[in-house]
Amino acid sequence: MQLGMIGLGRMGANMVRRLLRNGHQCVVHDLDPASVESLVKEGASGAVSLDQLVAQLAPPRTVWMMVPAGAVDDVVSNLVPRLARNDVVVDGGNSHYADDTRRARALEAHGIDYLDVGTSGGVFGLERGYCLMIGGPAAVVGRLDPLFRALAPGSGAVTPTPGRAQGAKGGTAEAGYLHCGPAGAGHFVKMVHNGIEYGLMAAYAEGINILRHARYDFDLPDIAEVWRRGSVVSSWLLDLTARALVRQPDLARFSGRVSDSGEGRWTIATAIEEGVPAPVLSAALYERFASRGEGDFAAKLLSALRFEFGGHEEQP
Amino acid sequence: MQLGMIGLGRMGANMVRRLLRNGHQCVVHDLDPASVESLVKEGASGAVSLDQLVAQLAPPRTVWMMVPAGAVDDVVSNLVPRLARNDVVVDGGNSHYADDTRRARALEAHGIDYLDVGTSGGVFGLERGYCLMIGGPAAVVGRLDPLFRALAPGSGAVTPTPGRAQGAKGGTAEAGYLHCGPAGAGHFVKMVHNGIEYGLMAAYAEGINILRHARYDFDLPDIAEVWRRGSVVSSWLLDLTARALVRQPDLARFSGRVSDSGEGRWTIATAIEEGVPAPVLSAALYERFASRGEGDFAAKLLSALRFEFGGHEEQP
Amino acid sequence: MQLGMIGLGRMGANMVRRLLRNGHQCVVHDLDPASVESLVKEGASGAVSLDQLVAQLAPPRTVWMMVPAGAVDDVVSNLVPRLARNDVVVDGGNSHYADDTRRARALEAHGIDYLDVGTSGGVFGLERGYCLMIGGPAAVVGRLDPLFRALAPGSGAVTPTPGRAQGAKGGTAEAGYLHCGPAGAGHFVKMVHNGIEYGLMAAYAEGINILRHARYDFDLPDIAEVWRRGSVVSSWLLDLTARALVRQPDLARFSGRVSDSGEGRWTIATAIEEGVPAPVLSAALYERFASRGEGDFAAKLLSALRFEFGGHEEQP
Amino acid sequence: MQLGMIGLGRMGANMVRRLLRNGHQCVVHDLDPASVESLVKEGASGAVSLDQLVAQLAPPRTVWMMVPAGAVDDVVSNLVPRLARNDVVVDGGNSHYADDTRRARALEAHGIDYLDVGTSGGVFGLERGYCLMIGGPAAVVGRLDPLFRALAPGSGAVTPTPGRAQGAKGGTAEAGYLHCGPAGAGHFVKMVHNGIEYGLMAAYAEGINILRHARYDFDLPDIAEVWRRGSVVSSWLLDLTARALVRQPDLARFSGRVSDSGEGRWTIATAIEEGVPAPVLSAALYERFASRGEGDFAAKLLSALRFEFGGHEEQP
Repeated sequence: MQLGMIGLGRMGANMVRRLLRNGHQCVVHDLDPASVESLVKEGASGAVSLDQLVAQLAPPRTVWMMVPAGAVDDVVSNLVPRLARNDVVVDGGNSHYADDTRRARALEAHGIDYLDVGTSGGVFGLERGYCLMIGGPAAVVGRLDPLFRALAPGSGAVTPTPGRAQGAKGGTAEAGYLHCGPAGAGHFVKMVHNGIEYGLMAAYAEGINILRHARYDFDLPDIAEVWRRGSVVSSWLLDLTARALVRQPDLARFSGRVSDSGEGRWTIATAIEEGVPAPVLSAALYERFASRGEGDFAAKLLSALRFEFGGHEEQP
Repeated sequence: MQLGMIGLGRMGANMVRRLLRNGHQCVVHDLDPASVESLVKEGASGAVSLDQLVAQLAPPRTVWMMVPAGAVDDVVSNLVPRLARNDVVVDGGNSHYADDTRRARALEAHGIDYLDVGTSGGVFGLERGYCLMIGGPAAVVGRLDPLFRALAPGSGAVTPTPGRAQGAKGGTAEAGYLHCGPAGAGHFVKMVHNGIEYGLMAAYAEGINILRHARYDFDLPDIAEVWRRGSVVSSWLLDLTARALVRQPDLARFSGRVSDSGEGRWTIATAIEEGVPAPVLSAALYERFASRGEGDFAAKLLSALRFEFGGHEEQP
Repeated sequence: MQLGMIGLGRMGANMVRRLLRNGHQCVVHDLDPASVESLVKEGASGAVSLDQLVAQLAPPRTVWMMVPAGAVDDVVSNLVPRLARNDVVVDGGNSHYADDTRRARALEAHGIDYLDVGTSGGVFGLERGYCLMIGGPAAVVGRLDPLFRALAPGSGAVTPTPGRAQGAKGGTAEAGYLHCGPAGAGHFVKMVHNGIEYGLMAAYAEGINILRHARYDFDLPDIAEVWRRGSVVSSWLLDLTARALVRQPDLARFSGRVSDSGEGRWTIATAIEEGVPAPVLSAALYERFASRGEGDFAAKLLSALRFEFGGHEEQP
Repeated sequence: MQLGMIGLGRMGANMVRRLLRNGHQCVVHDLDPASVESLVKEGASGAVSLDQLVAQLAPPRTVWMMVPAGAVDDVVSNLVPRLARNDVVVDGGNSHYADDTRRARALEAHGIDYLDVGTSGGVFGLERGYCLMIGGPAAVVGRLDPLFRALAPGSGAVTPTPGRAQGAKGGTAEAGYLHCGPAGAGHFVKMVHNGIEYGLMAAYAEGINILRHARYDFDLPDIAEVWRRGSVVSSWLLDLTARALVRQPDLARFSGRVSDSGEGRWTIATAIEEGVPAPVLSAALYERFASRGEGDFAAKLLSALRFEFGGHEEQP
């Protein structure tokens, strides 16, 4: 199948590679011509402009964007006048689900379809495949099925869940991609996925920090490694924890200022909108904020209060 | 009434002053002779040794300790051979309630009574009075009533709670001291008091930090001040917040490394033993730990994981 | 001074009474004619319609709304065609600060001024005075000063903060009202006030719950009462805690389903927008959500997982 | 190798089966004779008493206990008089690490060695192998290596961690068992493992609860399934989540009263002792406490306070 890819960063470029390996045709565009050239050498068709991109795609076109959430609206508004009825625009980045709903409605007025595709997998996706969470009209999702199937990990990699494969429940989820619902549903599921990711990461980080401050002198790389086998806490993030700790057991090359992206924040904002408790996911997010010094004034006030009522000076 | 005070730090010395002002006789002892001398000038009898202290007290004696929790067992074991049946030892410091139970039993074997008295009030206690939370045998608590009454704030300072004063419920609580139960009960209540204190402080600190990072340029001293009048959040800790912010609105003289003492920690440990949730009180304690860098390794691991799965470098 | 009040619920009616007592003239309107009549008997002028309300006010008019946040836009749009340049509309309810910004701009186009006034005090405000947090143009705030002064508690009720009264810092904050900044600033400060309120309430509630589950058989009304005097945790909310516990020590008339209003939620949403940690305030909010069963499905999943990996059945 | 197993519950019985399959000899004992008989049929030697158990083991003996933490001290004190110098007692259950230190010292006085072996794997361990975290003297751990190797999953099941297998770091961790340090170190690591487990479980549970309350009508079994492939949140616990949700998507057979065992609690108590923050792990534990109604009185107090200051009645 044919696809136009806009945005050839770490995610977009590897997705193109995985599609090419699976026999799909890719027309690729990026603001950086070097990124385009590099993929042309690997079999893609290059486009130095949106006009070129659109011109090389046979209608009905599929244009897939892998650009920062803040750039999506600009790209879409540049695309719309160049596209035709029944073309599909896919946002594979990290947009907020409310933006998807708005965009889907706006494009519908032009007869253009819109899909939001939450994409998980990071730099490992090229080999491991991408987990795809898809929102939009079922017919359009069905039409693009060969692309999703090529990008996704496929069913081979993981043991089947009892009661699914042979039962009533089978579907594309086993292959690693899922039509989650109407516009925004894909990014909603991806948002919660990232919220959970923050919680999981924090659980490992807190636990391993307790081990590091223990009365015992533990070998942390070994502990992460042994937990990978047969334990209840084995996971892909634990595999990465083991990697990171082998690389440098004291993690000295990191300062501990942890970044966060929109999806972790939106997860909490959504929990609050829904009125459902999310103390673990919130605590995980706040640890990141605090790691960047954003709680320092609060801490100063605590010290100031201790001074006021007890005359206590801060300990160095 | 006569009382022997051991430990003339910020708390002990002012408690002696308040007792003297109320007509009680105080024999005072401290490892630092200057502290003793200073109170002798204000009307106390000085004792440079435990022997001198005990010699100046008429049986049955009352010996009140205001020493660090870690020093109590030593002082008690030095006192026991010098005391007689029916003497009372009072621990007015911050012991763990389980230590009270143990000590009360040990002293009982010698016919000596033991009271644990959680004491709140800080450096303001001299003028404002001390809130006393008392554990031990009722008869002994009753015998020392004049001392407690002198130390406590009295009933005048605060509006009566409807349904208490004229009703069945009246008692010493209105005067600011309370027999909470058997040995350990006083320090148990004081422990929870401090756990709550951490929670209250953190609530103000977080809220004011949100104001400081707001899109508006708020005058924080003014806001703390206005909240002192008629608002739902008015409190003594808010009064101190207003003081601290007037003194230095940006709190620049503090680094934000917040100390904690045993009672905040024991509150959480007790909640866990009881199996009751205490997320707010725990979060408050953890903010203090984190302010001292004790979560840094966890944060480094988060950064390391972000690097592993996404190739993300830390932002400076 | 003259003021028109729209909305005569618990807050609005008592505010009118407090203004009347201080010699101000009030024209009052409510959808419920009985509420209007009742205040007419106490000296207010009644208005059965917005037309009547506006007609009785001499320009430049002050119209103060004490209506639910969801009703403000409707009232404003009904008011605008009836008002004239230099009239002032005051929103004394619980609007989101972003709505204030929007409304202030919309009214500005008509030459009408808009103030947002966060109002704290609850049912006690009539006697105790209302803490007022005000946003809007300084000149307009200044013009309404007599009204604010009458509603606020005044400076007498609370001990002065050292360094304020006689120093450079004095102002209206000591009287219990404050011009916090431009449009929205008043409701922003009130929002954070409520966020803090949730945190304070939860700190007391968790601590007292630990006491209730303790190995000791504590008298909770007495403990709340004794803490009111001289302790670090004394506060107005503690005064109310003491009242509630005297009324019914086991609180059996409550089921424990705790409501929350917009401001607690917006505080957390704002913290996340700002990227500042608020673990204590969030935990307090989540306890309310959980108390209403909104976390039940999560708990069921935990039980289900325990069954999956360990064969554990739930304990009754 | 020969081993005596005491305690043939879900864990002990399957561990015996796995050892038998790997050619080891097992003498088995349980208070329930049926459990003994059942394993005798599968090739174990039965012992209806400790005397019989010890008699069938050739010195130096290895006696492995899989009994509840509360029963370990009794079993040990019954064993000691029956054992000889150089025998080894293994506690494979869930003891607190401080109990291990105490027991190791007590047994040392008799010349008996003691190992603490944290064992993870649950009902899946028979097929998947058990992750073993071992504390005690290195020589003893080395002597029992064939048993550990047989119980553990082995290295085949998981992709190697880059930088370990071929590098300096290799060891037994790759095979799924690890000598973590001296007495108590094994159970310490297992304790933190369980603390992390609670955090991971809560992260999934909160996230999936957000999905369930979303504006979209999500198919939760499908979402858990798709996340198993290629996503950042894939894990063994997610595999179990997918199983549980396929079995019954609304989890109606669970009430949501979640049990907890000692290790989750000890993890938090240890964090507090160490003075390191663990907000995520604590929040996870507290959600379990709250799910069993242990926070209800706190919630009632919140409702009572809302009634006191605002006259608000609880919503049904």
